[in-house]
Amino acid sequence: MTSFVSHTTIDCADAHALSRWWEGVLGYEQDPADPNLPGHEECLIRDPDTGHTLLFIEVPDGPKTTKNRLHLDLRPRTGTRDDEAARLLAHGATLVADHRGIHGPGSGWWILADPEGNEFCVLRSRAELAGG
Amino acid sequence: MTSFVSHTTIDCADAHALSRWWEGVLGYEQDPADPNLPGHEECLIRDPDTGHTLLFIEVPDGPKTTKNRLHLDLRPRTGTRDDEAARLLAHGATLVADHRGIHGPGSGWWILADPEGNEFCVLRSRAELAGG
Repeated sequence: MTSFVSHTTIDCADAHALSRWWEGVLGYEQDPADPNLPGHEECLIRDPDTGHTLLFIEVPDGPKTTKNRLHLDLRPRTGTRDDEAARLLAHGATLVADHRGIHGPGSGWWILADPEGNEFCVLRSRAELAGG
Repeated sequence: MTSFVSHTTIDCADAHALSRWWEGVLGYEQDPADPNLPGHEECLIRDPDTGHTLLFIEVPDGPKTTKNRLHLDLRPRTGTRDDEAARLLAHGATLVADHRGIHGPGSGWWILADPEGNEFCVLRSRAELAGG
């Protein structure tokens, strides 16, 4: 007997706004059974291809205070790590750290944060990995 | 242009121990290219069916101090929510909260924590949901 991961849940102050923001990051779609209307305290978005799901839940804990001990690591579906990081900074992410080259030329990743301060990484695309 | 979630990363003090513990929770398998040996600072485990991946990374941040703002929500692959919670408590999880019945009879979930204190929820199985 084991369990599967139904979804990853992200505590937040504004579930609607943050879920819409992450839709733009990931190309995920809203749950058709429960569209993420403004004011909804629980908003779910899903990868239409894989079914991978994120759930945003409003919590009374106040804003984030320490580095998250869980984070998402992203890869661009197309293009490059650096173009995707630039797109996400323009989309409203903030820069946490530039770890490009941390394991030698061409290696590494960006650490960005979403509008509520949740850290995430932008890794090289599969095409970049295949190219060395 | 968008990104996909390559994996969810969990900061920890002992990547080998914690990844092995989660293998027992999820039935995930070690990365065959990089088996999770004792002492490895980065250990990756993967769902053999879906490819969903968790990466455990040792960090110098010290132990967890506040409630995680990201957490995993689990569903039993077979059996019931309550049997699975009992199994996981026996496996070394700790009880954080019993939220069974929070939305009426039969509803709700357990909140447990892994050996490093990371909260996760155990939801009803799909069979339980279908049965009301």
